[in-house]
Amino acid sequence: MQLTDAQRLDWLRLIRTEGVGPRSFRALINRFGGAAAALEALPALARRQGRPAVLFTQAQAEDEVAALDRIGGRLIAAGEVDYPRLLHRTDAAPPLLALRGAPILNRPAVAVVGSRNASTAGLAFAERLTRGLGESGLTIVSGLARGIDVRAHRASLSTGTVAVMAGGQDRIYPASHAALVDAILGEGGAVLAEMPMGWEPRGRDFPRRNRIISGLSYGTIVVEAARRSGSLITARFALDQNREVFAVPGSPLDPRAEGTNDLIRQGATLVSDVSHVLDVLGPIIEGGPEAEAAPARGGPDLAEQPDFWDEIDLDAYLPNSAPPHAPRGRPDTATDEIGFDPPEPADDRARIIALLGPCPVGTDELARCAGVGARVVQSVLLELELDGRIERHGSGTVSLVSR
Amino acid sequence: MQLTDAQRLDWLRLIRTEGVGPRSFRALINRFGGAAAALEALPALARRQGRPAVLFTQAQAEDEVAALDRIGGRLIAAGEVDYPRLLHRTDAAPPLLALRGAPILNRPAVAVVGSRNASTAGLAFAERLTRGLGESGLTIVSGLARGIDVRAHRASLSTGTVAVMAGGQDRIYPASHAALVDAILGEGGAVLAEMPMGWEPRGRDFPRRNRIISGLSYGTIVVEAARRSGSLITARFALDQNREVFAVPGSPLDPRAEGTNDLIRQGATLVSDVSHVLDVLGPIIEGGPEAEAAPARGGPDLAEQPDFWDEIDLDAYLPNSAPPHAPRGRPDTATDEIGFDPPEPADDRARIIALLGPCPVGTDELARCAGVGARVVQSVLLELELDGRIERHGSGTVSLVSR
Repeated sequence: MQLTDAQRLDWLRLIRTEGVGPRSFRALINRFGGAAAALEALPALARRQGRPAVLFTQAQAEDEVAALDRIGGRLIAAGEVDYPRLLHRTDAAPPLLALRGAPILNRPAVAVVGSRNASTAGLAFAERLTRGLGESGLTIVSGLARGIDVRAHRASLSTGTVAVMAGGQDRIYPASHAALVDAILGEGGAVLAEMPMGWEPRGRDFPRRNRIISGLSYGTIVVEAARRSGSLITARFALDQNREVFAVPGSPLDPRAEGTNDLIRQGATLVSDVSHVLDVLGPIIEGGPEAEAAPARGGPDLAEQPDFWDEIDLDAYLPNSAPPHAPRGRPDTATDEIGFDPPEPADDRARIIALLGPCPVGTDELARCAGVGARVVQSVLLELELDGRIERHGSGTVSLVSR
Repeated sequence: MQLTDAQRLDWLRLIRTEGVGPRSFRALINRFGGAAAALEALPALARRQGRPAVLFTQAQAEDEVAALDRIGGRLIAAGEVDYPRLLHRTDAAPPLLALRGAPILNRPAVAVVGSRNASTAGLAFAERLTRGLGESGLTIVSGLARGIDVRAHRASLSTGTVAVMAGGQDRIYPASHAALVDAILGEGGAVLAEMPMGWEPRGRDFPRRNRIISGLSYGTIVVEAARRSGSLITARFALDQNREVFAVPGSPLDPRAEGTNDLIRQGATLVSDVSHVLDVLGPIIEGGPEAEAAPARGGPDLAEQPDFWDEIDLDAYLPNSAPPHAPRGRPDTATDEIGFDPPEPADDRARIIALLGPCPVGTDELARCAGVGARVVQSVLLELELDGRIERHGSGTVSLVSR
């Protein structure tokens, strides 16, 4: 599959429209047969929801594409040849990814992530491990963060490295890593972003980004991680995506090893040598993405179906987390990826569905009771409506359709 | 069961006789109905083997008992009330144990072992862990070695600690730990030895001793261990004895964690908190030694059978390692427990059986081909003969009986 430029702009307009995330994007295309038709239908849908339709305009989309082009980037769409197939098979894969650098996203990859305040030993082992994995032919995926991430990128510059950013392509975080991004691009690596140009990464963008890191990879290796750290979120996404999870052990007295030791107790493969990763991933990679990295829920092989959007069983997908333009009602409590509870993508949706019944309730009331922002409620309701699970009533009220 | 003083002396004479180990001890008692009868039969057996009968005399036995008594020790026999039931259920349990201190060997116990040259972190964690386990009601078993062992004993002085020595009761190794032994005895702990009074521990005595440490315990915790270290031998015995194995993780860059990380990869439970041990052992201990700590091979519950020696299926037992008075033909390559290959108790016996056939071979030839000492060959041949598996021919030759 290859989108035309016009289709690509329609996709961009649709995914950038308020209240539309990867999951409702799919729902809309399923319902209306394409992005253009969905964009036409959205104003009416919004009116039924009692809110103004704020579409991402053609001009805005063209501006974003041009701005991305100026820094050497381009958009790749789910299902296109350069779009990573492993990621495509995950729940809530981004319909569009902004790519700078080489299209190396379909090479066998493994994620190496860990603490920003890593120990010297942790950094040294990350480097040794990453180098060995790179020399064995694996591309290394990480998040461009301080500590383990940077060490992993640097150690795999010559063998292939992919950095996934939480903000827009022009919003490198931390800014001091701009030179590393240049080095990655100069050495044939790739830099990816889901968020629009100009998007400054906020707290919630990091866990959201982490699903892409794990989704690109046959396995995720956590080198050092405190409890409740961002790396554990990546590991959890990897598990949800039916990918392998590896963890490097450490002393029980080192808080930076608490998270990895916990992972090992929970079944992650203990890694103290490159071979421990290769022994597990070798056979899986040999089988290829189709053979072994199937979605945990056994969904269809979307990439092989030209009309795949229409074939999707929506129930096979986890609900997406908050879409780009829908900041959550709950405040961001941290400024980067450390310190978050692992996001529960199904949370908002499940909470909202639980609050719905046969008796109509107002969407404002719903947002308040669910403890989420009005825009998240709108996004979830849009999905549910497209899925035929709710009915709209007067004065912005909705009720659950009894099945 | 309780032996008379006379029976105890017979047992001691039999187990201290050259060429008799725990396994041939059982075979002899099975064959002849008791230690006294076996002692009577041994000279004839030895003559058939073409070697002089060198029995441990009544006077020697009385001397050993008296010497042990002088330092406050006594012999407890397999099956007696003070003899540890968990140990009794293991292969090649010592028929007699020299005990100093309190008879606390049937309290629920866990072994804590590890490197002699442990790291500060390893020592600190060993102490924290041991203290927590002791306060939870577990007796701590260890080997009185430098490093982790000593820390484990010290941290469990007040809650119950058992030291198992590789030499005789009067041969504390290292000698500098004599004060610790006094402290253990003063605080209501126990000190055990399988070897005779006056026995200086040699290299091979340490792994041999380790089967007792693991055999006394519901589980063995390895805190720090290099590859090929004595603690791993204890862990392996624990596995063979169908007991739990726990290991404390460490950095892949720390050689002292290589052994424990390997153990975790092989399935040992990762321990970074006291609860990780209690969660596993709690239910097992609740079931009691009879319920859960059955021999891996499902042998009979010997302790419950007054005539248990006669009921033993010899094939259910691993062959014993070299008996006390039979130094191996292979040189001891180290002076204490670090640096050994884990002993393969079945090795010598299997190698000797493999070398035997229907055609008579000389026992000297056998020893040379098997690469073991003549006394080991004699001990194994004695077992095989008592088991009816070999025939003696002229000039010290033997052949396998075809079944």
